[in-house]
Amino acid sequence: MKYIFYTYLALVLVSCSNNKNSSSPRWEQAARGVWKVSVGDPDKVNLLSELNIVPNLDAIAEIRESPLPFGREEVEIEVVDNRTFLRFPLEESEKIFGLGLNFKTVEQRDRILRLHVDHYGGRDDGRTHAPVPFFVSSRGYGVLINAARYIDVWVGTGVRKDSEHPPVARDRNSDLDWTAKPYSDNLEILIPAGGAEVIVFSGPTMLDVVRRFNLYNGGGCLPPKWGLGFWHRVPTLYTDKEIEEEVKEFEEKGFPLSVIGLEPDWMTAAYPCTYEWDPGRFPEPAAFQQTMKERNIRTNLWINPYISPQGELYDKIEPYTSSHTVWCGLVPDYTMPQAQDLLKQHFRKHQLDIGVSGYKMDENDGYDFWLWPDVATFPSHTPAEQIRQIYGSLMQKITTEMYEEENIRTYGLVRAGNAGTSSFPFVLYNDYYNHRDFITALINSSFIGVFWTPEVRASHTSEEWLRRMQTVCFSPLAMLNAWADGTKPWSFPDVAEQVNEVARLRMSLIPYLYSSFADYAFKGIPPVRAMNLEEGYRADVVLKEVSFDATANPYAMALKQEVKDQFMVGEYLLVAPLFEGEKERQVILPQGKWYDFYTGECVGEGEVITASPGLSKIPVYVKDGAVIPLYPETAKLDGTKYPLEIRHYGEKPGTYSLYDDDGESYNYRKGEYMRIPLEVSVDASGKKEGKVETSDIERSWSFSDYRFVFY
Amino acid sequence: MKYIFYTYLALVLVSCSNNKNSSSPRWEQAARGVWKVSVGDPDKVNLLSELNIVPNLDAIAEIRESPLPFGREEVEIEVVDNRTFLRFPLEESEKIFGLGLNFKTVEQRDRILRLHVDHYGGRDDGRTHAPVPFFVSSRGYGVLINAARYIDVWVGTGVRKDSEHPPVARDRNSDLDWTAKPYSDNLEILIPAGGAEVIVFSGPTMLDVVRRFNLYNGGGCLPPKWGLGFWHRVPTLYTDKEIEEEVKEFEEKGFPLSVIGLEPDWMTAAYPCTYEWDPGRFPEPAAFQQTMKERNIRTNLWINPYISPQGELYDKIEPYTSSHTVWCGLVPDYTMPQAQDLLKQHFRKHQLDIGVSGYKMDENDGYDFWLWPDVATFPSHTPAEQIRQIYGSLMQKITTEMYEEENIRTYGLVRAGNAGTSSFPFVLYNDYYNHRDFITALINSSFIGVFWTPEVRASHTSEEWLRRMQTVCFSPLAMLNAWADGTKPWSFPDVAEQVNEVARLRMSLIPYLYSSFADYAFKGIPPVRAMNLEEGYRADVVLKEVSFDATANPYAMALKQEVKDQFMVGEYLLVAPLFEGEKERQVILPQGKWYDFYTGECVGEGEVITASPGLSKIPVYVKDGAVIPLYPETAKLDGTKYPLEIRHYGEKPGTYSLYDDDGESYNYRKGEYMRIPLEVSVDASGKKEGKVETSDIERSWSFSDYRFVFY
Repeated sequence: MKYIFYTYLALVLVSCSNNKNSSSPRWEQAARGVWKVSVGDPDKVNLLSELNIVPNLDAIAEIRESPLPFGREEVEIEVVDNRTFLRFPLEESEKIFGLGLNFKTVEQRDRILRLHVDHYGGRDDGRTHAPVPFFVSSRGYGVLINAARYIDVWVGTGVRKDSEHPPVARDRNSDLDWTAKPYSDNLEILIPAGGAEVIVFSGPTMLDVVRRFNLYNGGGCLPPKWGLGFWHRVPTLYTDKEIEEEVKEFEEKGFPLSVIGLEPDWMTAAYPCTYEWDPGRFPEPAAFQQTMKERNIRTNLWINPYISPQGELYDKIEPYTSSHTVWCGLVPDYTMPQAQDLLKQHFRKHQLDIGVSGYKMDENDGYDFWLWPDVATFPSHTPAEQIRQIYGSLMQKITTEMYEEENIRTYGLVRAGNAGTSSFPFVLYNDYYNHRDFITALINSSFIGVFWTPEVRASHTSEEWLRRMQTVCFSPLAMLNAWADGTKPWSFPDVAEQVNEVARLRMSLIPYLYSSFADYAFKGIPPVRAMNLEEGYRADVVLKEVSFDATANPYAMALKQEVKDQFMVGEYLLVAPLFEGEKERQVILPQGKWYDFYTGECVGEGEVITASPGLSKIPVYVKDGAVIPLYPETAKLDGTKYPLEIRHYGEKPGTYSLYDDDGESYNYRKGEYMRIPLEVSVDASGKKEGKVETSDIERSWSFSDYRFVFY
Repeated sequence: MKYIFYTYLALVLVSCSNNKNSSSPRWEQAARGVWKVSVGDPDKVNLLSELNIVPNLDAIAEIRESPLPFGREEVEIEVVDNRTFLRFPLEESEKIFGLGLNFKTVEQRDRILRLHVDHYGGRDDGRTHAPVPFFVSSRGYGVLINAARYIDVWVGTGVRKDSEHPPVARDRNSDLDWTAKPYSDNLEILIPAGGAEVIVFSGPTMLDVVRRFNLYNGGGCLPPKWGLGFWHRVPTLYTDKEIEEEVKEFEEKGFPLSVIGLEPDWMTAAYPCTYEWDPGRFPEPAAFQQTMKERNIRTNLWINPYISPQGELYDKIEPYTSSHTVWCGLVPDYTMPQAQDLLKQHFRKHQLDIGVSGYKMDENDGYDFWLWPDVATFPSHTPAEQIRQIYGSLMQKITTEMYEEENIRTYGLVRAGNAGTSSFPFVLYNDYYNHRDFITALINSSFIGVFWTPEVRASHTSEEWLRRMQTVCFSPLAMLNAWADGTKPWSFPDVAEQVNEVARLRMSLIPYLYSSFADYAFKGIPPVRAMNLEEGYRADVVLKEVSFDATANPYAMALKQEVKDQFMVGEYLLVAPLFEGEKERQVILPQGKWYDFYTGECVGEGEVITASPGLSKIPVYVKDGAVIPLYPETAKLDGTKYPLEIRHYGEKPGTYSLYDDDGESYNYRKGEYMRIPLEVSVDASGKKEGKVETSDIERSWSFSDYRFVFY
């Protein structure tokens, strides 16, 4: 066991060479391979300033060092007219990722975004739940624009007269090489403020950049183990008795269930909210929590930020609220400690103290109508725009801290986040419901330090239902959200067994998933990841010529086709969901041999294969040499120690560092955790042999025994 | 004849009562019933500052006076954090119109907009070709936010804690009166600048407000008479000979034609542009212009703003251009007189001097990609955001002035405009192509001092083709734009005759239309108008209950249904287009009796009627007592004097002030125009008698004779 020491090391000031005018950028080293660059007069409140996060400098220091791929003088920053302008160089083959939770595109070069917290509106224009102003370049560096402002980004679209790599002017009609988007060699940014701080992260690989970014934000979150089980949100009008019936039904059907989510009407009033139990539906909330606890079920409560005059919090928090109301509810100014403390007190009294496990925090994202306008004023004098950009982050911070203070881990849902939230145990979700786009969001979440769930709500067909269930089980939060539709996992009887099967597969994967999340917490490696962060993966954007159309495509733009429907889970698994109507799909395998998860068969090597596993399976592939620790399918997350199945795939020898801890508290931060080395050797004849210290298993929190299975 | 005196009267300073801090608003009377209100430190460049427009104070003074419907203290303005915040009170039944060229909504209360010059992207979110920050209230006042900035507007959506008319907080589930959008009693605005000027216009009616607004901007434009004929834009690769053939074909088919539009490839290079004739397709441009002139055809040339290195303008204008290029072309800084003069010189030499009648000015609107980014810098130091908001206005101003300097009227097309352009003879258009939404834009254009054409390009069916042709003939610019599709008016043979019929109807309406445009120029009355500007019109927005849907409508919002598909043309005509697939439609008639334009039959009185005129007719209704002057259908706009048919509809006596002038020059501004009074009296028995001074007709430019026709 290794003791990780979390302190904030004094930052070494590396003086800035260039001071030609007041807005010359100041460079300052913030961690190994991390630099803060500031210019002008940055806002007091930024994306990170209010979150109380502590960079994990030790873990950052363990990442191999790499210089920035350009000189500091190539980064231009200046302040004009109360706006801050930034420019980064782009190389011809360079790719840019990140820049918010996009739903339709992974590569962001050639796009124009206005990063603005909002409900995603069907276009990758920057308005999204987590418009994190952080980009990762394929040249091996990344940049966070640490400003809580609506930030405009032109990613390789603007062409400067003084460019060193100018494109050639062409006549649209006579020259076949004319293009609607001439080559641009820079990425430009506009921050509507009189100064800003940016944080530059070095590589060498994109995964290193992402890791540095996450660790700088305090590392990734480690959810409680129960958080990785199956979640089910019940219809909003359900009573305690109806929920107990629902839980019983899950038990009877043998369907895994770890968390029950309650929707608005658990409260005396919602939209705006009291955060107090409705005495009609929940006459004895503490007893109800106790009943749930006995059945090994956690409860998660829906809330939104707006405070109802019908509740006891209203009068107390009123002095710390905005000029404007939302749904007639007060909007607390959560940059103020007073407002934070009042919320914590109220939550403790009504929820935490009786055993509620966490929250689903809705409507902190906007859609403009369901949020304060930017003309609102707040008692802390923080501009409304800035409050909007960090409101979801603040709500995550407050609830996380409240549970931390009790040494209890929480895991919940939230509809808005931003930079700096990777250590907060919250998963983003929304009302949008496109299965393919949900996968693209899952991929994009890994560049920007957030989690996303492609939650299942309803479906038109049993095929769609099953396909959605299959993917959600390979996401950070496997959830059926039946708040409005009253669906149940078995709502489509013809696929009920297959749905159960994939949910049980999720349960068996928990040792593997939990270790993957530990890698997020300790090393900053996202547990669910874009293929682009995987070594040996190559898939370039393909331009598809489309025909000119005076209305639909007047500039005769080629359509970009990119791979945005397959992703990595943990160290070894490649998941390639199928969608409704598909009998087969193409999968791009990175370099090396890959094996079918279910059969162990070799499926290919650094190539494009066609997957056609039938309706009942989601295509999952395993890297050569993978060691995968599994629970029995029937495992419940009730503290029982289960026998461990240790699978090995392929020809190469393999190792795995199995993580374990108590699964519930923050004691792991004090060193109370284990790393159990699993090892499989392969001799010249191909014979495999597994090795694990039995004493490790015996000392573990979660495992009773083990056996190796060689595929 | 009345001599209109255009001078800029010294403005009377009405001192501001309230000076409690440095950002107290300053009120200043700018004209009768018009006040300038400023606060903080307004930008030097605003929507009007660069346009050289002269308010028509005399004409404004003729509008009856009316106080503002609220006290000055009810308007709140303050500057905080380099942003300017404004608040206007809203009453419960108050309606708000205007706020840009919207395509889907007419009433703007309950909407949130960010007014931003852009290509319309399918949503009424403020990004549009003419995001004019001017609103008109049903309480009888209007406000222009005179700032060339991206302005956010919350129209009755923000609810303040300190509201005097606070809505009641309700529980979403248990209270049936819960609403997703609680009542708001204010209209709030955010200007991202450290000060601003707003201009407040009084009523009493909304039409009075609009008139004051237009007259303050110099009045409406009076197009040359030929501009009201039929326009046809030919495919981009057409040569001079092909155009001559096309013109011949129109003549042979007896189809009216006044203007031929040439698309990008008339130039040596386009995207970026040289503005110089392609010697292959147009070896003798002057001779070509002469040929067209002999056939009584004007030519209109497509351009976009970006200057090609292949042309002679490039080197000269380079010092006055932006840091960024678009399609590798220079972006002139047209706030600089040097750039304006260079463009004028170039246009004169290559176009005006050989007889070109005007331009279609494309791509000054954006779509972000086809425009400079906001990080661009300009040699005048005007911020890029401000330049974007007025670029279309500037291009209109430059070309208008160039023609004015030659005492020639022009009429053209442009893809961007803003406040202050009503006197510039340009009509907005775009690539969007929804017939219904095109009509809504036509309606909205009348609130904000711009013109819009629902141009016809192509259609899926002959029915759609005919329906589109029918509406475009009742718009400010009747045009078939075949640049990409190569369509001709007779492209659908089964409706070719009906298309010809409505085009000929357009020609016969020219005396009426031209007088209507004169009312725009002299009195500020939009020739094509929203019903809401019509006295006696009542049509409230209807809320249609729609069912809750967790994905599509999670807040269970009622759908707004409003009347946005009928409009007024001139003083007397109500036009209610039919759309593809419709056999009939409902039409809301304002108070008083209304008559069928074609038959003279009375169709109703202040009621909703069903129109089913068959495929060949567009429903047109005439107000009781209307006097409508008509040309023969076969009239050509070649200077020939035609006999006038003076129709009278209904029971009431009627008058009409028929306008006439030379149709081509600006001499009308020197008083060289006529107003010919047409009068029809009706005696007690219903007998009608027409009266017009024969000497007036004899002295006119356009009429040889007259006869009355009583319907």
